[in-house]
Amino acid sequence: MYIADETWPELGDYFADESVALVPLGSTEQHGPHLPLATDHLIAEAFAREAAERTGYLCTPTINVGVSPHHRQFNGTMWVDAPVFRDYVESFTRNLAYHGIDRVVYVNAHGGNVDHLREVGRRLRDDETMYAIEWMWNDSIPELVDDLFEQNGPHGGPKETAMIQHLRSDLVREDRLEDARDGGVASVDAAGTVKFGSRTFYDAADNTANGVLGDQTDATAEKGAQMFEEAVDQLCQLCDWLDDQRFEDLLPKAHV
Amino acid sequence: MYIADETWPELGDYFADESVALVPLGSTEQHGPHLPLATDHLIAEAFAREAAERTGYLCTPTINVGVSPHHRQFNGTMWVDAPVFRDYVESFTRNLAYHGIDRVVYVNAHGGNVDHLREVGRRLRDDETMYAIEWMWNDSIPELVDDLFEQNGPHGGPKETAMIQHLRSDLVREDRLEDARDGGVASVDAAGTVKFGSRTFYDAADNTANGVLGDQTDATAEKGAQMFEEAVDQLCQLCDWLDDQRFEDLLPKAHV
Amino acid sequence: MYIADETWPELGDYFADESVALVPLGSTEQHGPHLPLATDHLIAEAFAREAAERTGYLCTPTINVGVSPHHRQFNGTMWVDAPVFRDYVESFTRNLAYHGIDRVVYVNAHGGNVDHLREVGRRLRDDETMYAIEWMWNDSIPELVDDLFEQNGPHGGPKETAMIQHLRSDLVREDRLEDARDGGVASVDAAGTVKFGSRTFYDAADNTANGVLGDQTDATAEKGAQMFEEAVDQLCQLCDWLDDQRFEDLLPKAHV
Amino acid sequence: MYIADETWPELGDYFADESVALVPLGSTEQHGPHLPLATDHLIAEAFAREAAERTGYLCTPTINVGVSPHHRQFNGTMWVDAPVFRDYVESFTRNLAYHGIDRVVYVNAHGGNVDHLREVGRRLRDDETMYAIEWMWNDSIPELVDDLFEQNGPHGGPKETAMIQHLRSDLVREDRLEDARDGGVASVDAAGTVKFGSRTFYDAADNTANGVLGDQTDATAEKGAQMFEEAVDQLCQLCDWLDDQRFEDLLPKAHV
Amino acid sequence: MYIADETWPELGDYFADESVALVPLGSTEQHGPHLPLATDHLIAEAFAREAAERTGYLCTPTINVGVSPHHRQFNGTMWVDAPVFRDYVESFTRNLAYHGIDRVVYVNAHGGNVDHLREVGRRLRDDETMYAIEWMWNDSIPELVDDLFEQNGPHGGPKETAMIQHLRSDLVREDRLEDARDGGVASVDAAGTVKFGSRTFYDAADNTANGVLGDQTDATAEKGAQMFEEAVDQLCQLCDWLDDQRFEDLLPKAHV
Amino acid sequence: MYIADETWPELGDYFADESVALVPLGSTEQHGPHLPLATDHLIAEAFAREAAERTGYLCTPTINVGVSPHHRQFNGTMWVDAPVFRDYVESFTRNLAYHGIDRVVYVNAHGGNVDHLREVGRRLRDDETMYAIEWMWNDSIPELVDDLFEQNGPHGGPKETAMIQHLRSDLVREDRLEDARDGGVASVDAAGTVKFGSRTFYDAADNTANGVLGDQTDATAEKGAQMFEEAVDQLCQLCDWLDDQRFEDLLPKAHV
Repeated sequence: MYIADETWPELGDYFADESVALVPLGSTEQHGPHLPLATDHLIAEAFAREAAERTGYLCTPTINVGVSPHHRQFNGTMWVDAPVFRDYVESFTRNLAYHGIDRVVYVNAHGGNVDHLREVGRRLRDDETMYAIEWMWNDSIPELVDDLFEQNGPHGGPKETAMIQHLRSDLVREDRLEDARDGGVASVDAAGTVKFGSRTFYDAADNTANGVLGDQTDATAEKGAQMFEEAVDQLCQLCDWLDDQRFEDLLPKAHV
Repeated sequence: MYIADETWPELGDYFADESVALVPLGSTEQHGPHLPLATDHLIAEAFAREAAERTGYLCTPTINVGVSPHHRQFNGTMWVDAPVFRDYVESFTRNLAYHGIDRVVYVNAHGGNVDHLREVGRRLRDDETMYAIEWMWNDSIPELVDDLFEQNGPHGGPKETAMIQHLRSDLVREDRLEDARDGGVASVDAAGTVKFGSRTFYDAADNTANGVLGDQTDATAEKGAQMFEEAVDQLCQLCDWLDDQRFEDLLPKAHV
Repeated sequence: MYIADETWPELGDYFADESVALVPLGSTEQHGPHLPLATDHLIAEAFAREAAERTGYLCTPTINVGVSPHHRQFNGTMWVDAPVFRDYVESFTRNLAYHGIDRVVYVNAHGGNVDHLREVGRRLRDDETMYAIEWMWNDSIPELVDDLFEQNGPHGGPKETAMIQHLRSDLVREDRLEDARDGGVASVDAAGTVKFGSRTFYDAADNTANGVLGDQTDATAEKGAQMFEEAVDQLCQLCDWLDDQRFEDLLPKAHV
Repeated sequence: MYIADETWPELGDYFADESVALVPLGSTEQHGPHLPLATDHLIAEAFAREAAERTGYLCTPTINVGVSPHHRQFNGTMWVDAPVFRDYVESFTRNLAYHGIDRVVYVNAHGGNVDHLREVGRRLRDDETMYAIEWMWNDSIPELVDDLFEQNGPHGGPKETAMIQHLRSDLVREDRLEDARDGGVASVDAAGTVKFGSRTFYDAADNTANGVLGDQTDATAEKGAQMFEEAVDQLCQLCDWLDDQRFEDLLPKAHV
Repeated sequence: MYIADETWPELGDYFADESVALVPLGSTEQHGPHLPLATDHLIAEAFAREAAERTGYLCTPTINVGVSPHHRQFNGTMWVDAPVFRDYVESFTRNLAYHGIDRVVYVNAHGGNVDHLREVGRRLRDDETMYAIEWMWNDSIPELVDDLFEQNGPHGGPKETAMIQHLRSDLVREDRLEDARDGGVASVDAAGTVKFGSRTFYDAADNTANGVLGDQTDATAEKGAQMFEEAVDQLCQLCDWLDDQRFEDLLPKAHV
Repeated sequence: MYIADETWPELGDYFADESVALVPLGSTEQHGPHLPLATDHLIAEAFAREAAERTGYLCTPTINVGVSPHHRQFNGTMWVDAPVFRDYVESFTRNLAYHGIDRVVYVNAHGGNVDHLREVGRRLRDDETMYAIEWMWNDSIPELVDDLFEQNGPHGGPKETAMIQHLRSDLVREDRLEDARDGGVASVDAAGTVKFGSRTFYDAADNTANGVLGDQTDATAEKGAQMFEEAVDQLCQLCDWLDDQRFEDLLPKAHV
């Protein structure tokens, strides 16, 4: 169920019976010459809404801008500073507890948000308000992702390209896939971003001229559809697993 | 132009030539038995996107959840605490300056956000980063709004009803309009919310049993369309006016 | 009773029996060529002390400086940044709860403080510490104010002039009343501060050359005295109403 | 000159020529059975206003409530939490720089504020905004204070008693001076507040049953007047000394 | 050079010529039944001091307590909340810039600090104060670590055991190595900590009964010595590389 | 017992039976031409560890950098800004309560930390988490310190010199003791740091050319040993006294 389409009287039954919510989060940041800035939040929203549809759990509106200062050199990248992002997500989530929500899945599609969502999740769990965890679609189907693509760059690569080809083909610049590959970097290793054991870079612009990594040319909408189907199934199972737990079992363990 | 649909190379021309952005903001909060929780953010997004389309100025993604603790007693109302909201909007906006944006219109459709947007706008202007102002559609066409409806309640009343009938008729529960009127309060005056000069209420629930004020039964999609057209025209003119100013003239005046 | 004139043993009875306090707040900011910077805090203090005298409720010392950055271009305007002001008022008020105060009236005479006091009041009420509300004298007698003056400008106009003529006639520069009128702006409408529905100004200096609005020449001490008497009566009634309520009834309503 | 009595046009000359301001700060806290809670802020205000009168430097309104949690067990003690107090004083002072003030004397009469004022003064100096220092009347005339009284307790003792006898004799409960002495503690040593080198107390209530230390019975208004005269002279000299310095010489020294 | 052993006049030459500093950071947290709580900070300090000795660069005192709430269920684990830790490290580091340090290596030996050090490093770099990067010894010699041990658990495993055997053999409980292995978990995979793509755990206690992972029984002091030598060599090279860079080249790249 | 040398199972008995902890804190700041920057934290650590050894109470790792901006002009002085220091110490201490620690001695050897530790101690006590107090070695043996030295300067003087001669004679530059005396200031009085009752200085560099006060030439290791022995005995007695108290008796007294 998508909360924003409902009226308040209609939501009464849900809060009486259920305590799970899905919160989609992404970014609005450069994804190379072939993908729109919306890439991450489109993907997050698609997964969260679809899983909510299939399972009946509640989905909230999407947080469209995340922690992306590392992409700022590229036109149009939007971002919120990390401490502000954490506090915003915390307040956004914490207030759901007023209606009885006590377990949340952050359906996230931007790597730069992960650590911050974990920190917020800890805050909410350590004070026993809520159990909130982060989920990224590609982490739920790692073998499939590896099987489908030759050079599976972590940002703007073929896995994200295929996903947008599946979800919003009108937004993929198909004629720029080769440019994306040739103007970027093939892989993290190829970027040579670690020196003597230290990550010496802070920004995407330190590593890649056009902002992306990977070989986008073997991406297809079909591969996107296959990944979407398998990953959304994982997400639905995660929600059901969450729903099955006793709240006490989700809270921090006692001192030894 | 909607920033999230573009790629970073495509945005180069805009930032080279222009410095205006529209930022839509709303809420996800109860709007009575007849309107969806999305009401405010749907309206804000519709105005901002349409004005961006007509004028060519840049529109950002929408901030869907705002400062709505005063509606929390009703199922599903989401909110972010006021200090967190201000900091989030400030960071969200301030970082646009990195790309050269120096004037912003907050296209806002939730009354509870107004003071906070003014405070953020002051921060950004006082340190001479940016000139950001807040705009609400109904404040731009007050006479028309007054003319069209009998009891023009400020929350969930006929003006918002008509606007959603125009924008997303599938989300209006037409069979609940009379309930909305009868279960709520006709007007702010009727709510009797001021005692001896002091506003003694803090929450909508202090005044109205079903969360809304006004008489929703004379709302129609046609009235919505008429208001939308007149107000979006105001917004376009505001953007053009902003664009015409010299940045120095938008900054704080000098000490006397 | 004025708390600061008492000794701690003398206050024992009050805290044993009563739970109401009045907190006066104003500003120290320009009020045109005819009124002292003290205008707002003098008025707030006069009302709070008089009501405390008449009713026996406790009055605290005055907070003399408020949120006035919008007047800063004029010599001597003092202000505290808004987040700091809110936290200061919150701490100032919250600590009164330690002695058993659970309902507070902010006797405020500066419009720029209102929203901040409402926000602080919400914090204190939402965590069920206290019920604190804001009161402004002119909002308690709107018809009388309208009746008495021709052009009732909101800042430095005849209503504030008359009040200072009544309270501290030595501080009114009677020979500057015409200058005040002629060098300022007659009304908010005349100031033309709204463009296409948006308030495009942030500072008083954006609208008025000498810092004030209204026609000060029909102000008299007698009118001041009349307004004072009627408004202080409203304030006393408000305190009695507060005192009559059960604390539970002042707290937020339960979730529907 | 007292800023709050002036109009903005009248203040123009001062800011054109001068850069010194006096800021009075005190507390509203218990001072035993014989002195009003106002004691500290009355004293601070009296010194600051008198010095401003004599020298012509600017005096601001008084900050009436300070950092007094250590007196809270006694009825009516008001306080603001320390971090909030620091930020409030910082904002209050920093904004004076907008008008050209670059040196400030905190005319303080509450020991519990001292460290916080020093911390704020450092912030303002380290970023080269302003040079602000703290002054307490009794520290400026230590020999005289020692000469005049037998048991010169630090809180509510004879020096403060004499000062209020001089400044506001109507507020001294003369018939409670012996009670004050007998129900309190003669001196800090007598209170035995240090154990093995550590101050083991946090609150006045840990040491003294009626909240005060010292022997109040040899206080007189004449002694108060003598102390006032000598100390205000010190304060005037301090202001003149400040005025004579070059701003560069008041800023932090360079790195060695 | 170890800064704390020097006097201020002796340090003059360093700051005149050099701009690199090493800052050791660790934790004080449970490391199973066989290793002391000091494990991480001992390792960090040993590396930083040794590299400073060999290269002549400056080493600061060690930050002994880090972000370890995930180990708190085990006796004695100390920690500082994440936002506080970040601000502390930022202030600690930023103030070094006053003496001319503009490049810093965080010699860190606690995984839980990594993301926070990256965030602090970004703050310092984005405002162009300083270039600070994080280094962990085992990340600099991944192949060697993999070669030396069978089950190389990430916390309290053989690599940390061998390192403490080398550095402080008196602190290793050699008779508890088998207990450590048998009472813990062999590997992250064995812990089964990911469900449907989501890390569902927050605390070490969620995964391992005795707090550690890996097989500690093939750890030896010789292996520790070999790792220490190879890794310290990496660290020295990193410092020299840093020293060779132009400061401009370490700052963020310009906008495209 | 030193917590960092223990394993978590070994600590079980302590937390089951005891609730006292010692936390050493110092600074890393200039101490003249004769003493290392480590002076304060070496002293604090020596006292805390020795008392823990003798009494069996728990000692934590040392906080090596404190609030020392007033020494920054001298090479190598490190510091953390005061608000950050307070929050760090608070979080560091507060989290010990999770293991059952409810009384803490801050074994501090840097005067600049004192007020901040008192403020933190108040926070922890006022919310009834813990009773934490500050102890400085020289305050526990004031007569002895006065007896031993001619000019007992408060910073870098003979008492600190003798203590380092005792604890770490290798770090004292014996050939610079006369320089230290001659290049510094004999006493606080001699520094003339107070004008008309106001402390007009903020930095050590405002008063002393080489950073120290006092006559270091009559310091000896024997005097250091004598002071150490007497003061550590005071510290042990303080710990035993703390241990003997009922927790309720350490908490704030009730309202009168």
